[in-house]
Parts: sequence; structure tokens; C-alpha cells
Amino acid sequence: MTHPDAAFPDPRMGEPFLLTPGPLTTAFSVKEAMLKDWGSWDGDFRAMTKALCDRLVALAGDTKDEFACVPMQGSGSFAVEAMLGSMVPRDGKVLVLANGAYGLRAAETLRVMGRAHALIDKGDYLPPRGDEVGRALDADPAITHVIAIHCETSSGILNPVAEIAEAVASRGRKLLVDSMSAFGAVDLDVNRIPYEAMVSSANKCIEGVPGFGFVIARKSALEAARGNAHSLSLDVHAQWAAMVRTGQWRFTPPTHVVAAFMEALRLHAAEGGVAGRGARYARNRDVMVAGMRDLGFETLLADRWLSPIIVTFFNPAHPNFVFARFYDLMKAKGFIIYPGKLTVVDSFRIGCIGRMDERVMGRVVAAAAEALAEMGVDSAAPPAAAIAERAKLAA
Amino acid sequence: MTHPDAAFPDPRMGEPFLLTPGPLTTAFSVKEAMLKDWGSWDGDFRAMTKALCDRLVALAGDTKDEFACVPMQGSGSFAVEAMLGSMVPRDGKVLVLANGAYGLRAAETLRVMGRAHALIDKGDYLPPRGDEVGRALDADPAITHVIAIHCETSSGILNPVAEIAEAVASRGRKLLVDSMSAFGAVDLDVNRIPYEAMVSSANKCIEGVPGFGFVIARKSALEAARGNAHSLSLDVHAQWAAMVRTGQWRFTPPTHVVAAFMEALRLHAAEGGVAGRGARYARNRDVMVAGMRDLGFETLLADRWLSPIIVTFFNPAHPNFVFARFYDLMKAKGFIIYPGKLTVVDSFRIGCIGRMDERVMGRVVAAAAEALAEMGVDSAAPPAAAIAERAKLAA
Repeated sequence: MTHPDAAFPDPRMGEPFLLTPGPLTTAFSVKEAMLKDWGSWDGDFRAMTKALCDRLVALAGDTKDEFACVPMQGSGSFAVEAMLGSMVPRDGKVLVLANGAYGLRAAETLRVMGRAHALIDKGDYLPPRGDEVGRALDADPAITHVIAIHCETSSGILNPVAEIAEAVASRGRKLLVDSMSAFGAVDLDVNRIPYEAMVSSANKCIEGVPGFGFVIARKSALEAARGNAHSLSLDVHAQWAAMVRTGQWRFTPPTHVVAAFMEALRLHAAEGGVAGRGARYARNRDVMVAGMRDLGFETLLADRWLSPIIVTFFNPAHPNFVFARFYDLMKAKGFIIYPGKLTVVDSFRIGCIGRMDERVMGRVVAAAAEALAEMGVDSAAPPAAAIAERAKLAA
Repeated sequence: MTHPDAAFPDPRMGEPFLLTPGPLTTAFSVKEAMLKDWGSWDGDFRAMTKALCDRLVALAGDTKDEFACVPMQGSGSFAVEAMLGSMVPRDGKVLVLANGAYGLRAAETLRVMGRAHALIDKGDYLPPRGDEVGRALDADPAITHVIAIHCETSSGILNPVAEIAEAVASRGRKLLVDSMSAFGAVDLDVNRIPYEAMVSSANKCIEGVPGFGFVIARKSALEAARGNAHSLSLDVHAQWAAMVRTGQWRFTPPTHVVAAFMEALRLHAAEGGVAGRGARYARNRDVMVAGMRDLGFETLLADRWLSPIIVTFFNPAHPNFVFARFYDLMKAKGFIIYPGKLTVVDSFRIGCIGRMDERVMGRVVAAAAEALAEMGVDSAAPPAAAIAERAKLAA
């Protein structure tokens, strides 16, 4: 049934490549794993759930049996909400580090739940740094937890979680990491970057299909989470306790999505785990960014901040460039790209993750060149305002 | 790619049949629809979401454009929580009608959310009746909403929602229906059974795979739901408003599960919609119950209360009958059955829903006969306590 070493791209996949931060292009064998129905109560499925959790915990490094994985139905944002609602006591206070949509969403989640929080908002993309996090913690002893976004896909920046973790740990506070789009391809070893809990989802760097997220947390924190949650469904403690007791998900799991994820985990291991997966994505990024720069496109971020997940490019200043048409032309050539999210200047994004290699990325660049020509855009150089914006971080 | 008239059972499906209340056995073509990746931002997927919502609303009868469908990521319980948290104002009060696990779970959901509620708990299976609901509403004017479970799969009873709806509507209160396991096979036409909102999920009588639920609600109620929710993720108003504005799910949808559901909806229509689907399930139940009764098994419920969804049988009194062994023997013969949930006497359940017809149900009965013989059980008659229990409802 499965095809362990399917080509990139697999010739059986006729659809466009998804150059987006997820859902993303998955291996055909991942999708084939969904051709079977599973009883969620049955022992075979319970064994699959256990293996899934064990393998995910192992990706967090040698946790010395001090961590557990708790999968959670729904999108990644459901899992983030579950982590925040469960791991933070009702009388806790969270410092949210935001530099894009996902940091702001964490703050909004806390607001809706009625949990105390403070916000460091760095705007569209500037990274929160360890020293300013330290100063904020020193200034407010009520803060119990900090949430950081590992890769903020709004801009594609890889935030400096190691220095943030150091600032948080040295002050005796607890770090929660939203590693939604990075876990599995970027190192998040708990021995190097101490955290209380992290969250990611099935359809990011593990390359499964969407339908659940997962929290990997210190068991002591999971035990302490009892009764914290604002929601019956999004209760990480209750889900964990039920799994320990029965081996089952508390409520119906997305069985087919789970089966697909097991095949995705197998491919992830076969590729060399986090290091191997990260290396392919970095090559994808390097080939794609170099090619796009050759066409005259410019990235929002300097190289040191570019994640291997997704890259933001400024829209060309040329009057013939219209993003909606560029999107349609790229889609017709087999590549679905992603709109930008910057508030100050127009931009678009191209993802580097999913079942694609640098040869595919070379074709992406060639397609972009064709699209520019078809639009009558002879220069992809961004407007001066974009360069001025970029100078804020380079400085 | 799809096989519209696949045989029952489809010869490509080698796995055991799931005789459970969901996840259930789905058509092979439903699973095949998952062999493609979708960009959730892309126009093709947005068009699929719109078609999904339109077709589901149509299953609720001629709603005169007064109703809308709001899909919600996660299991059915997530969608129930979303409906309760969103449609009931923070200062509202809910009367919960419980006769099994799902009614009690609704009450627990309200408790965790901190919403006022009252409970009519009828125990393991006795149905809440219209007259007692009316009396409870007359006695407590603070009650704004009533939640009823359409088919309570704990026992398999089809609760009398029509008389409950009448009692609620005549007193100017609002009815919420958890029709998780019944919608799509049992009539829930809003013109016959007035309700404010109902909830179901992908992997029940529409025969999709698990991964999302959906709320079908009066648009006026959706408008009034703004700001009610206790959760960012489980906010039905916000999900609806975002879909109206952008055509997208607010957070990442389970794209493959949605694609599978579109094929499931096509098969549902081809079978004659709610009436056709319900008729097949009723035949499944009738053949299966008659055969099991021939073997000496007895149902918990008298015929008038038996749903076409799932049926509870008493465990035989014979000392050689051990459910875990019966389960394993049935599984080895290709049928996964379901444990019971009664608190007073031991029981098990057999589902009638999913991609199966009465020929399959005949094989289920034959397998049960073989299993009894292999266990050395020469009579499937239940203990006297079971018969005494059953007399409570028959009386």
C-alpha cells in the first residue's frame, strides 16, 4: 500500500503544489493511509495513538520520561487555545510575545478566556529579543508564563526562542512555545531550549494532513493543569488523563488523519528526523530565494532571520504587477502561493515545506519568471517604502 | 476516481465492518476523495465549503433562507460545546434533557463553561417526555433554552423530539438539538420540529470520515450569538461571520475530511436523501434485531423506541459469556461491535449505520451465532434483572 521512497514529485499527484504554511503538499503514501476505516475504540487504533505520542515526544529530545504528548482534535489554533487554557492556572498571567498574526491570536485567545496577560507587540516582523523579555519579567512579578511563537509565518521569521527561553528560565517563569509551523524541521530540544509545553499540528513539518494538533508538555505541568481549562473539549489535562487510563482519545479522533500521520512520521524518520527534514527545507528555501532574487524580487528579512518554513517577498513596484493575477498565473502553472500579511507594504509569501525538493523549487522560480513576463513586469524590484521598512530590522 | 455505485460491501475494503455509532464504515469512494491535497485559502476549496454548507442546510427542510450551516473543526462534542457556548447568552439558562452519556456530557459542558443550567436526568434510557419538559419550563421562567438529544446512542433510544419541540415552542423557549447520530437518516425538518439550532458531525449518518461537526442554526440566532462564546476556537458566530465575509474557515479546516464529506453527500443524495438513508438503516436494524432475537438475545428497548442507528442488547446470563471474548471473536469474523453503557445491567451495542446493507447484517447475525457456539453459550437469554429493568419503560 505504501511507497516509501516515492519520487519528488510523486507522478500520481496531479494537483498543484501547495507553497503555503499548511495545509501543505503531502506524500501520496500519506494520503493512501486514509483508505481504511478505523474503530476509535478498538485496540488497533489505541496502539496507533500510543505510537504516535511516543514518537512525537522523542522528537523533543531526550526528555527522560518527564514529558508526554497530548493530541487534540481540531486545527492548530484549537491546540494553542487548549494549551493556554489548560497549562496556565486561572490566576496566572501570560506574557505574549507577538510579531505577527499568531502572537496576536494567542493574546486574543487569552482575552476571550478572561485570562490575565501582557503583550509585547513588535509589529509586523521585528523579533522579540531575550533582553527585552527579561526586562518585562523583572518589571512584572505577576507574570507566570511566557508564550513565544517559534516561526511566525506572518513574515516567515524564525524567532530567537533559545535566548527567550534563557531569559524566562533564569527568572523562574515558564515558557510555552507555539512551534506550529517549525516543530519537526527546526530544533526544539527541551534540553537546549527549556520549555514547559509546546504545541504543533499534524499538517506542518511532519507533513501529515490537517485535523489535529498536539501539545508536548512536562508531565508535572500536565498534572498541575487539572481543573484549569475553560472548556470541556479543549482540556489538555482531561485528554491526557483519559489517554493514560484508557488508551483512547476522550472524544472521537479524526481516525483517518491519525493513520495518515503515522505514515508521515515514518517518512520523517526515514529522512533523518528533524535534522534531515530541516536540511531539505533549508535547501528548498535557499534555491527558491536565490532564484527569486535573481528575478529581482527582494525578501522582507535579512538572511539570518529567514526561516526554512516560509519566505515573505515584497510585491514589485512595477504598475503591471497585480497579486491576484500573479496568484492565478502561478496556480495555472501548478503552484499555489500565499498572500502576504504585512500591514505597511504589500507582500506575498512562498512556503518551503511539504513534499517538495529543490528541483520543485527551481520550477517555482521558473514559473514566477514566466508569470512576470506574461504580466508585462520587466522588473520585480520593490518600492522604496519596502526597502525603508526592511531597514528597521537590518539596522 | 469515484465509484458511484460501489457494491455493499465494496470488495476493495478488506477491513472489519464498524458496527459502532461512528467512526463508521464509509464507502471506498469517500476515502478515495482524500487522495488529493487542497489549499484551504484557494478558491477551489472555498467553493467546496460553500457547497457543503448549502447541501447541509437543505437537509433541514425548506428553511426559507432563514438558516445557515456553520462547520466546526474537531469531534462532535466540540461542535456541541460550540453550539452551547455560542447560542446561549452568558446570562441564559439551559434545561438539559438527559437519558444517557450525551445528555450528561451537555450538562458537564455547561458546568465547565460556568453557564446556568437545570437537568432532567432520566437515567440510563427512559425518554424525557413533552409533558414533563413543559412542567419544568412552567416551573422555571429563567430557562431560556432546552437541549435535547435526538438519538441517545448510550442506549440507542430515539427520543421524542417532536413532542419536546412542541412543549418548548409553545412556551416561547428555544430548542437546541444534539442530532449527532441521527441527522441525515432521521427526519429533523425544522418546519415539523421547530428548533433554534442543531448539531451533528461528519462521520455519522452522512457517512463521512471524522474531523469536523456542524451547527445548522437560525440566522437570527447566529447574529445574536456574537460575543457569547467562552472560547476563540469554538465560537460559532465568529466562524459563521468569517465564512460569510471570506468564504474560508477561520482556522485551518481538515481539508481531506471535507473533500471526503462532499463525496459522502453525493452518495447520500443518490440514495434518496434522508428518507432513503433512513430506510436502509431501518432495514439494517430490522434484519439484525430479528436475527439476534432468533438467537435468544433481547433488546433493552421495546420496538417503538428502537432507533435505526444503534441497538442495545443485554449480555446473555450464561456463565460462559464474556464480552471481551465475544468482541474478539466478532472482530476476527470481520465485525467490530461496541461495548454497552448501561449502569444497571451488562449490555453491548450493535450499530446499524455506515456503508452496510441488510445482507451484511445477516452476516453479523451468523457471526454472532458462531461466536456463541465457540464460547459454549447455548442460550443468549438475559438475566432476570435485565428483564425487570426493561419493564420500567414498557410499563
